[in-house]
Amino acid sequence: MRLSNYYMPTLRDDPQDAETQSHKLLVRGAFIRKSSSGVYSYLPLGMKVINKIESIVRKSMEKYDSIEVTTSVLQSRDIWEKSGRWQNFGPEMFKLIDRHDREYCLGPTAEEQFTTLVKDELNSYKQLPLNLFQIVSKFRDEKRPRFGINRSRDFIMKDAYSFDKDMQGLEKSYQKMWDAYVDVFDQFDLDYKIVEGDSGAMGGNKSHEFMALAETGEGEIFYTENSDYAATDESAKFFLEIDENEELKEIELVETKDAKTIEEVSNFLSVNKEKCAKAVDLLVRGEPVLVIVPGDRELNMAKLIAYLQVPEHEIEMMDDITIKKITEAEPGFTGPKDLKENVRVIIDRSITRYKNLVIGANKTDHHFINANYKRDFDGEVAEDLLTAKEGDLSLDSKEKLKKARGIEVGNIFQLGTKYSESLEAYFLDENGKQKPFSMGSYGIGITRSISAIIEQHYDEYGIIWPTKVAPFHVWITLVNNNNEEQRNLAEKIYQNLLNEGIEVMLDDRKERAGVKFNDRDLVGVPYRITVGKDSKDDIVEYSKRSDMKNKKISSKEAISEIIEAVREDLCK
Amino acid sequence: MRLSNYYMPTLRDDPQDAETQSHKLLVRGAFIRKSSSGVYSYLPLGMKVINKIESIVRKSMEKYDSIEVTTSVLQSRDIWEKSGRWQNFGPEMFKLIDRHDREYCLGPTAEEQFTTLVKDELNSYKQLPLNLFQIVSKFRDEKRPRFGINRSRDFIMKDAYSFDKDMQGLEKSYQKMWDAYVDVFDQFDLDYKIVEGDSGAMGGNKSHEFMALAETGEGEIFYTENSDYAATDESAKFFLEIDENEELKEIELVETKDAKTIEEVSNFLSVNKEKCAKAVDLLVRGEPVLVIVPGDRELNMAKLIAYLQVPEHEIEMMDDITIKKITEAEPGFTGPKDLKENVRVIIDRSITRYKNLVIGANKTDHHFINANYKRDFDGEVAEDLLTAKEGDLSLDSKEKLKKARGIEVGNIFQLGTKYSESLEAYFLDENGKQKPFSMGSYGIGITRSISAIIEQHYDEYGIIWPTKVAPFHVWITLVNNNNEEQRNLAEKIYQNLLNEGIEVMLDDRKERAGVKFNDRDLVGVPYRITVGKDSKDDIVEYSKRSDMKNKKISSKEAISEIIEAVREDLCK
Repeated sequence: MRLSNYYMPTLRDDPQDAETQSHKLLVRGAFIRKSSSGVYSYLPLGMKVINKIESIVRKSMEKYDSIEVTTSVLQSRDIWEKSGRWQNFGPEMFKLIDRHDREYCLGPTAEEQFTTLVKDELNSYKQLPLNLFQIVSKFRDEKRPRFGINRSRDFIMKDAYSFDKDMQGLEKSYQKMWDAYVDVFDQFDLDYKIVEGDSGAMGGNKSHEFMALAETGEGEIFYTENSDYAATDESAKFFLEIDENEELKEIELVETKDAKTIEEVSNFLSVNKEKCAKAVDLLVRGEPVLVIVPGDRELNMAKLIAYLQVPEHEIEMMDDITIKKITEAEPGFTGPKDLKENVRVIIDRSITRYKNLVIGANKTDHHFINANYKRDFDGEVAEDLLTAKEGDLSLDSKEKLKKARGIEVGNIFQLGTKYSESLEAYFLDENGKQKPFSMGSYGIGITRSISAIIEQHYDEYGIIWPTKVAPFHVWITLVNNNNEEQRNLAEKIYQNLLNEGIEVMLDDRKERAGVKFNDRDLVGVPYRITVGKDSKDDIVEYSKRSDMKNKKISSKEAISEIIEAVREDLCK
Repeated sequence: MRLSNYYMPTLRDDPQDAETQSHKLLVRGAFIRKSSSGVYSYLPLGMKVINKIESIVRKSMEKYDSIEVTTSVLQSRDIWEKSGRWQNFGPEMFKLIDRHDREYCLGPTAEEQFTTLVKDELNSYKQLPLNLFQIVSKFRDEKRPRFGINRSRDFIMKDAYSFDKDMQGLEKSYQKMWDAYVDVFDQFDLDYKIVEGDSGAMGGNKSHEFMALAETGEGEIFYTENSDYAATDESAKFFLEIDENEELKEIELVETKDAKTIEEVSNFLSVNKEKCAKAVDLLVRGEPVLVIVPGDRELNMAKLIAYLQVPEHEIEMMDDITIKKITEAEPGFTGPKDLKENVRVIIDRSITRYKNLVIGANKTDHHFINANYKRDFDGEVAEDLLTAKEGDLSLDSKEKLKKARGIEVGNIFQLGTKYSESLEAYFLDENGKQKPFSMGSYGIGITRSISAIIEQHYDEYGIIWPTKVAPFHVWITLVNNNNEEQRNLAEKIYQNLLNEGIEVMLDDRKERAGVKFNDRDLVGVPYRITVGKDSKDDIVEYSKRSDMKNKKISSKEAISEIIEAVREDLCK
């Protein structure tokens, strides 16, 4: 490609709304342009990268026996009603009606769509397992789109769905996708961790997220250095050391004038925060619910949602009027004992292990001290509703948890029979018995991966693309295109490389050399040749984007070095 | 690919809603499935064909200097307001709002989007010409989706937009796209005609449509056999022989009791139909308009729309109340003379050439005879508002027009400065003067092309794919997969062909031979090998899908014949 015929409107300044390096560099380097909030166009360089990423994903999916199909972005309301997600998906779902007032959404994911697609046609165990994938745009009406194509409202995703006859089959299909994803993200040259995930709105059980490590990542993960444990902040498990043998003391109602927060109560009573039980006052589908956790811990909303099996947008903080109604007290003194109405109380398992707790007394300016589970208060016990902290012990209590941030570039879910049952997708097993499919679903963020790659591959001058996903392999800078010697040499190298199947950009614009070098470094193609004054002696400058060390060699040497280097990179 | 691991749910029966062969065969052959009215999913075989079609289009576009980008399906209302098409596009446009009540459409086309994309960044004549294309889903809420993926509501389209500094530049860009389209449709092995088109809602001037000939096509075209004239029914021009030298007679009001239609009036008065002027009573944006055409001719709505510059949905038939108001007569006697209100009258040019016409008298049961333009009635003259008929003379009056039906697989439009002016997209010319781009837009229906190819390539057994767009090149039928000799030979041939880069489907299912042959013929891969009883002698049956003539040859001969044939097909 000759740059004089190309469309590459690079920018000198960072866009005002860009917070991350990947966002800045993608806009400045002429890869993307915003068309409206959270919606992007891909310029020619961006398309090159997308096509490479898609091609890598497509090949890896096929290698692991997934078959490509495409379903429409327009998905009917009726299939989402059957799965119960039409309401549950919440305001992130774009909805629309057609001219006949039939309702549709713009697919944010496609479990319902794929289950419906194979339903009644995939009907024998002999046809199983089956794994189908597609690479299409997905839509989520993010409340706060940000970080460019990292959290956009229209994004390209590869999604796959597996159909198995039982959980053993699903385990195998899950493992295959795990392997495919390792294959893909290794080719993207990403530093990532595979973490236990929360399955959230997807339903089902086991899930893992592929998190590309990046300080700007929106996801938090916890991991141990020596074992391979890693999990999202939403699902991380940890061991809590508690003295369970402490002697039980007598419960006592005490005045705690003006002490409402855990901090204040802890100071006022001189009791450690973890032993001041925190009551989180919620409305779940409009009904009051108290969740009791240790005072030094955050309630983990993802774990609570999984426990309640209620969508996030149906959980809200309790209003003061309801608090006063159930406690007959001012807000700030809610507790699990002596509630004035029959309220659902959910107790984190740790609360049953602590002895002699401080709890709100449902009386203004009062708390109980030395309150103990079962003896003094009761409630349903949930195994784990807590958020981990850096330094917590791992579940086997051998190591301390470390914390990092990451970008979720892939995820794999075991859905089980949630969708096959609700959408009535059955097959006949070996005994002629009707059974629902055991399903899995598997996503890779195509456009988000581009963000993640850049967050891990850039310097002060611009992007440093790994060869496999680079828009071009080689960038030739023709320093002075009025000079015939230079022009001829650049052209010769260009043609030679093209003939070898190398993808080359030749900067033949009538621009100053400085402008050309800046654009070259910004766009970040891995190998570079500069054709300048030494052309008369057939000498060019050769460098890699990664170290930018120039060396002067003959054009022939440069060509053969590049061919070898590119081939090696592509075979990795 | 081994069919035992593939997903190919072929059907024995035609789908009930299918009217055309392509629709029937695509569903039965497991290429597509309907997900809702006019919305389709593409099964694995369908994806294979789409990927081939897209690849051919992509390469041809790049060969003719168009560069790939992608813009979002979500397009903001504001850019469509600027071009005036937010209202004008009518009910075919899918509209939606986001969580912040901002309005969007699902792009039915992207003139506004591309003009906005380059605006302010493409700003010098030095960067011109520029031609950008994308291959993405488009959405049109068709009133009556039909013919499967021929007229669907979600379809894949390649659309391209060119930016030039003047009309001379645009002419060149237009010619390049013409050449690219010839390159594409020749590779699809389509029999097509390039016809003069009506530019309709796109605005602008010159346009051409690429019409694949097919009896089930929704488009009508007129053409001459010996010259290369061809045009859509909406735009076909023709020469009307009229005796303009007839002597003018005196106008006379005559009673035409109960004669309302042209047929009735013509019989009643014994005057040829063409000389009974027909008044077409319309409401244009709510205002009454009469259009006067010869009685034997249909008013051409596309020509009228182009003349009025009003979108189709703002033109409707006049209601009886309005007719009575402007004529003070019963409906059926409207005419251009003695209207009771000031009504816009548009007269087709031919009406000015006919002498001694019959016209409605705006009086119940009355017509005028011997009415003549200018002497007896007046109105604004439009050059051509008539629809051609088979047998009409070509404009040069040398040949009679022939009529055929076709599927519009591509179109090219000269938009001029309509969009650059309304969206304020300017560049600086050689003299530093600001000028709007001269633009063109160019579409290819990716999914519709699949329909068109099948309409021209099928027989009673199924599809007959041209090699370049076939889902596979070769289909090996293993007759009995319990027989080891057969299995080994089939496997050997399969591997040998794969190693040569040939795309092979091996039917290794445990099915009866009859089922396998039926599926093979239905799916329609161009070359076939049957591995059966003669395997012990290394003999297989080789045939082409196009003639289905079997010949028994050695496996080696079959392999080399196929390799040669496929390579020859692909190089064509």
